[in-house]
Amino acid sequence: MSVKVNEKYLEGFVSQEEIKKIAPIAKEAFSLVKNHNGAGSSMLGWLTLPEDYNRDEFYRIKKAAEKIRKTCDVFLVIGIGGSYLGARAAIEFLKSPIYNSIRGNDPEVYFVGNSISPSSISDILKVCDGKDICINAISKSGTTTEPAVAFRIFREYLEKKYGEEKARERIYVTTDRAKGKLKEFSTKKGYETFVVPDDIGGRYSVLSAVGLLPIAVAGCDIDELLRGALDAKNEYSDFSMDNACVKYAALRNILYGSGKSIEILASYEPALQMLSEWWKQLFGESEGKDKKSLFPASVMFSTDLHSLGQYIQDGTRNIFETVIDIKKSKDNVTVPYDQFDVDGLNFLSGNDFNDINHKAMLATLIAHNDGGVPNIVLELEDRSEYSLGYLFYFFELSCAISGYILGVNPFNQPGVEAYKKNMFALLGKPGYEEHKKELETRIK
Amino acid sequence: MSVKVNEKYLEGFVSQEEIKKIAPIAKEAFSLVKNHNGAGSSMLGWLTLPEDYNRDEFYRIKKAAEKIRKTCDVFLVIGIGGSYLGARAAIEFLKSPIYNSIRGNDPEVYFVGNSISPSSISDILKVCDGKDICINAISKSGTTTEPAVAFRIFREYLEKKYGEEKARERIYVTTDRAKGKLKEFSTKKGYETFVVPDDIGGRYSVLSAVGLLPIAVAGCDIDELLRGALDAKNEYSDFSMDNACVKYAALRNILYGSGKSIEILASYEPALQMLSEWWKQLFGESEGKDKKSLFPASVMFSTDLHSLGQYIQDGTRNIFETVIDIKKSKDNVTVPYDQFDVDGLNFLSGNDFNDINHKAMLATLIAHNDGGVPNIVLELEDRSEYSLGYLFYFFELSCAISGYILGVNPFNQPGVEAYKKNMFALLGKPGYEEHKKELETRIK
Repeated sequence: MSVKVNEKYLEGFVSQEEIKKIAPIAKEAFSLVKNHNGAGSSMLGWLTLPEDYNRDEFYRIKKAAEKIRKTCDVFLVIGIGGSYLGARAAIEFLKSPIYNSIRGNDPEVYFVGNSISPSSISDILKVCDGKDICINAISKSGTTTEPAVAFRIFREYLEKKYGEEKARERIYVTTDRAKGKLKEFSTKKGYETFVVPDDIGGRYSVLSAVGLLPIAVAGCDIDELLRGALDAKNEYSDFSMDNACVKYAALRNILYGSGKSIEILASYEPALQMLSEWWKQLFGESEGKDKKSLFPASVMFSTDLHSLGQYIQDGTRNIFETVIDIKKSKDNVTVPYDQFDVDGLNFLSGNDFNDINHKAMLATLIAHNDGGVPNIVLELEDRSEYSLGYLFYFFELSCAISGYILGVNPFNQPGVEAYKKNMFALLGKPGYEEHKKELETRIK
Repeated sequence: MSVKVNEKYLEGFVSQEEIKKIAPIAKEAFSLVKNHNGAGSSMLGWLTLPEDYNRDEFYRIKKAAEKIRKTCDVFLVIGIGGSYLGARAAIEFLKSPIYNSIRGNDPEVYFVGNSISPSSISDILKVCDGKDICINAISKSGTTTEPAVAFRIFREYLEKKYGEEKARERIYVTTDRAKGKLKEFSTKKGYETFVVPDDIGGRYSVLSAVGLLPIAVAGCDIDELLRGALDAKNEYSDFSMDNACVKYAALRNILYGSGKSIEILASYEPALQMLSEWWKQLFGESEGKDKKSLFPASVMFSTDLHSLGQYIQDGTRNIFETVIDIKKSKDNVTVPYDQFDVDGLNFLSGNDFNDINHKAMLATLIAHNDGGVPNIVLELEDRSEYSLGYLFYFFELSCAISGYILGVNPFNQPGVEAYKKNMFALLGKPGYEEHKKELETRIK
């Protein structure tokens, strides 16, 4: 029922000697996490979250989700980065990448405020037309440009549509526990609020209110999600080179050390597309610093076997793959018999798609191994809430360990400030006058 | 109105000397394309397609699209790789990434048969429930597993729903002009067919019937698309280092030669997400061979500035970016004034999102330059059909030139066969008995 690391397709690529050599480094990294004495250790709240989360808030999240499900057709989640990737990944994983088209009686869920594209805003306004809306604005500070301007637009939209009094019942804010103008404003307005914990960064926040409210609104079982995470926490709590989190962290660092520069997360279910995006943020932002780290990329097979597959098989040999192998499919579909056998595939008639998909995976693992590409396989039982909670925790802990093995602070993101500072200057934010002048000379 | 290559953000990364040095190689590569004497030159049909396409077929495509738009609620496009990426990229670029949610009176369009996931099939069957359906099966050979099994399922579905006679009116097949069992079968059944040209590979086929029928069904103007491509063909027909296609091809090869291993295609409109996937297939499959080539990746800004942005700013310095800069947005949205100024962004009140988005781009270009990342900027007027046709042609020609500069055949994909062969063996296809035994020993 847990996440297993299958090393079979690393044979010939990773030696026992390399594993032995990294073991003490991995042990030290694990200890930095567990003992809260590594860089960024004030941001380790996610480590024990599955057992010490706030029960009262959890109850309020479920109540709010119930109410939202009853009172709206469209639920808008306003957030960027870690404030939306986790929830979107979860809903697509648990339900479908086309959830909004097949949702039945569940509300439509859209994610806005994660870009500055006017078309994105405009498209969502079209979706909202004539429908009942609730919104969840998610921002620790309340001042991040993308979600902040989207919140202005949709708050105004709701207040025009329902009046200020009734709009208040439809606006939920997930923000700092006590500080900040968004919290202050929400209190004044009377919005129900939830907490972005102080000790959990955006990319580690999916199992907090940040992710849980939208996930619950889509009709997913958040108790099961946390139960999976808790079992993961318990399974992975002690150091050993057989601890799956340690193993994954160690293997990817060994491959990085032996010259690989790109890790490609591969899966065979389109429902995992956004989970791959969540994973890319988790690892890219945690490790991509100090001029080092693996570049995290993703592919969806078998479709991308007819795209990046060529590169993976035959291009520059600087890659390895991490494959998520989901054992049981949510759906059963079999290949029909065709009396004309137009495609010559009657030998597949009656075969289950899940079985064919699994054989496509084995076929690809062997082909890519033969092409010189190491493959780590992560085995997961199914697409249930329990399994997803397990997987989220598995990746979070693996990432923290991996970052410490690499020698970086896995909990900061200093590089995100550079564009923000330039953007404020170019936009004429008060206080940035000097920097503005300098930049305007450069872009001339 | 055309595609312009802006080199400003390459200053300090690419020297005039390097450009001089690559010029004769680029000239030779260009000549191989134009004179049809490079590797794979039998697959150059796309080069003159915008002027010598079959007018009768083009007329039939428009007629068929009109009929489909009148007779169905849901249009299913069955194809994998080049048989779906172009059309999907075009519809999202021209309409919206959430086209199906805001399509008005246009039919819903879904792409199936590009994976072996049973859930994908099952989800689409749910979408179809109670609605009128038309399908377009796209496959040169008719024997590619993923679309073939999906075609079995949806053909059977239509025949059950409408009867064989009436189903025939709802099935459109895009396949080989004359050869193959799918063509033969379609003729026998009386399906209307369109042609996958003999001299155009999947990833170069978007402006043939492969892409045009689905694009037209979504209500896009395919005359304008071809007009843009024709103008591009004329603009880029002669060699010069100022020819934008030559320039882009040369610059990316210079960066590759100077040690960059990843090219990240960046854009600021979520509508370009699938265009990036199309681009990844085009370049990844054309160049990813003989153990070389840039790895093509993509990001969507500003959302991914809060994800891979950290890596791009501060991680391993083995990357460069190619940014698509769309000058005019499709939509106008301005930032509302907020009397509470909760987010401190009142200095933006009344500002146009497109202007803010553009400043975010400039801010990021400078920040990434400062972080040591070269940026190629591709400027495009707008998200019109004309501009998209231009851009498709620009990338196709650039890719062919780039592949020849790199020294590979940009028109084959030998690496795609490896997984297919293994898959057929594991699935027990007659004739693969020996290979099956061998593989089964390996996976034990």
